[in-house]
Amino acid sequence: MTNPTTQTHQLPNGLTIVGEPMPGKRASAWSLLVPAGAATEPAGREGLTTVLEGLSYRGAGPRDSHELSDALDDLGVERGGGADTEYSTFGGATLGDYLPPALDLYADIVRRPRLPEAEWEAQRDLALQSLASLEDAPARKMFVQLRRVYFTNDFGRSTIGTEAGLKSLTLNDLRADHAARFRPEGAILALAGQFDFDAAVRQAETLFNDWEGTPPLAATPAPVTTPVYHHIAQDTAQQQIGVAYAGVPLTEAHHYEYRVATAVLSGGMGARLFTEVREKRGLVYSVSASALALRGCGFSLAYAGTTPERSQETLDVLLGELARVAEGVSEAEVERAKIGMLSSLVMQEESSRSRAAAIARDQFALGRVRSLDEITEAVNRVTSDTIAAYYAAHPPRDFTVVTLGPKELQVTAHGL
Amino acid sequence: MTNPTTQTHQLPNGLTIVGEPMPGKRASAWSLLVPAGAATEPAGREGLTTVLEGLSYRGAGPRDSHELSDALDDLGVERGGGADTEYSTFGGATLGDYLPPALDLYADIVRRPRLPEAEWEAQRDLALQSLASLEDAPARKMFVQLRRVYFTNDFGRSTIGTEAGLKSLTLNDLRADHAARFRPEGAILALAGQFDFDAAVRQAETLFNDWEGTPPLAATPAPVTTPVYHHIAQDTAQQQIGVAYAGVPLTEAHHYEYRVATAVLSGGMGARLFTEVREKRGLVYSVSASALALRGCGFSLAYAGTTPERSQETLDVLLGELARVAEGVSEAEVERAKIGMLSSLVMQEESSRSRAAAIARDQFALGRVRSLDEITEAVNRVTSDTIAAYYAAHPPRDFTVVTLGPKELQVTAHGL
Repeated sequence: MTNPTTQTHQLPNGLTIVGEPMPGKRASAWSLLVPAGAATEPAGREGLTTVLEGLSYRGAGPRDSHELSDALDDLGVERGGGADTEYSTFGGATLGDYLPPALDLYADIVRRPRLPEAEWEAQRDLALQSLASLEDAPARKMFVQLRRVYFTNDFGRSTIGTEAGLKSLTLNDLRADHAARFRPEGAILALAGQFDFDAAVRQAETLFNDWEGTPPLAATPAPVTTPVYHHIAQDTAQQQIGVAYAGVPLTEAHHYEYRVATAVLSGGMGARLFTEVREKRGLVYSVSASALALRGCGFSLAYAGTTPERSQETLDVLLGELARVAEGVSEAEVERAKIGMLSSLVMQEESSRSRAAAIARDQFALGRVRSLDEITEAVNRVTSDTIAAYYAAHPPRDFTVVTLGPKELQVTAHGL
Repeated sequence: MTNPTTQTHQLPNGLTIVGEPMPGKRASAWSLLVPAGAATEPAGREGLTTVLEGLSYRGAGPRDSHELSDALDDLGVERGGGADTEYSTFGGATLGDYLPPALDLYADIVRRPRLPEAEWEAQRDLALQSLASLEDAPARKMFVQLRRVYFTNDFGRSTIGTEAGLKSLTLNDLRADHAARFRPEGAILALAGQFDFDAAVRQAETLFNDWEGTPPLAATPAPVTTPVYHHIAQDTAQQQIGVAYAGVPLTEAHHYEYRVATAVLSGGMGARLFTEVREKRGLVYSVSASALALRGCGFSLAYAGTTPERSQETLDVLLGELARVAEGVSEAEVERAKIGMLSSLVMQEESSRSRAAAIARDQFALGRVRSLDEITEAVNRVTSDTIAAYYAAHPPRDFTVVTLGPKELQVTAHGL
């Protein structure tokens, strides 16, 4: 099978339609992205974006909450998406034949949510409960704090919000925010699976041509310049360890060196963190590192969950392994990491849902969509030499560390 | 696209090969199932199956642990599967071209694991850590207890094991258990994606024809006859509520009435539990019901996570909704539930990994694989009348309830 080709069309109001018809699929998936995320929500209203996203499905256009749920269920729509740091996505998937009526509903959800008086407090209460449930989810709580300390500006916010932000929220805040931030400039409608691109564009013109406006501009993510260590004392059985440090954005030349090096650390079964931290030393139940991306900003998050007794050694070994990438990686490690990345790329692309989400993210971060062939070629160009050259100039260091559990740790020279 | 057809071949030793070549796929997935699960592990060694499954990847045949990890990574294998109640699966996926060498490795892993002296204790320690991490995962801990009280025999065991079982484990136990339970009679090799069935059968003959033996027979799952309420007092922020009650096994005529009725409760956005418990009353952050299957036994698990203050009302409303199915469901609800089930079936089948796993489960539970067309027709035959007739004779009741959190609850007449 040859890789499908992405088609793009931009409406005069700034909404971009990107689509990838996938031969042989019976399902269609979409992701309607509006650049309204936690990072651009009004100060003092942290959590608003999550409440707004959820409330948008509680009645829209001509349908009340119950009618809208039933209409989506009548089309077999599996709802996806959610609030994120930089944007909110209104996603879904269903059989290809039902795509046009499903898009009609989603245009209502994004443009004309009723945001009903009678239901908004229940939605806010759900958000407060979700926030409270962090207390029973130590790893998630640690990651919320890690992002909060790693970014010095609003990109450190979690979509889960804060108790103060959620409690001061009003329905007027939600309605005003929707009016300000849910605008077509910079919005993206991504489609993948069984559909006809030209027909989708015609439908999008009908649904969105009279939508107008520009949302407020987001700032740029600002990571800490001096690394931080923060400990959350909590009486848990396991010690949670999180590490954040600089990565390479999608827009920079050495992005793929960074991605392959991350896979050497944490890709396959023989990856360094797995063998060095988990298997060789039996230190942890879970250990990983991953490459994350915001627009114009790459960063890595590493994680280990272990017993309090083994936590100091685990942190030391983990930071040591993260730093040791600068000493080079073997060609065999690079080849294995590349095969694993390309193999998992092919598998992800089997799913129209994951492809629609990936298309939307690419369009948002790069202003265009990378084809699978382009990614494959870029990955294949990486060698142990190009990785060594990059990391010699940019050794991983300045690790920001958050721990949660019974034991405060010492962050060694690797980190600070 | 027409639905692919499953092909089946059984070796003289009892290993069944079932495969579904999927046109247009570039990936292949497999699931090698051996009927050795937590329910048949030796008494007093609870947790053995999980340790054995993990240790099987730590060197097999001619390769030590490191060499085996590297060999799998060289083929881009994404490892899947794991220990389960009734069986263990050794699963994976990779690009189609790499399937034959990957199957060679998996035959070693299942038939000739080294179970090395130097590594087994680290593997056991990981299992002990996983068990300890339940203390930080209240919902998972509740579900482990719910299955334990719902089944009166070993089918209530969790694969996570017990501290006593894991601590009394020896390497000899693991080796003896592998010799006794990892046998071809009843084992299944399921394949889906890009491959040639005849070639796969020829390879399987080479790899498995000289494998011999029959594992010990498993008992039959025995649910409680008198419902139980069990409370785990724990100082958590949220209250966890779990409910177990009888379902309809895959082998019985009214299985699809049961499945559609469960989807009416917990399928789409407008499903009863979602609207009645979550949205209308704002009681819970999360609520769901699902249909589960063991061989010859169907059962339902329902879940709600809520605040301690709202937990009694949540339990009352939840049990009320589960019981109310017996009063009938509307034709509109049935139609929506069916569309949702069929739509999500099509989406699941996009993935060769999920198809390989589904094929293996069907072959284990039914002795044959249901085609998508067969499931579609069976779902389409369900009506509100057939559901009403079934539930009039078999009203949902005798709810076994486990709660975890600060508050012990009262289980009303719906339940006991």
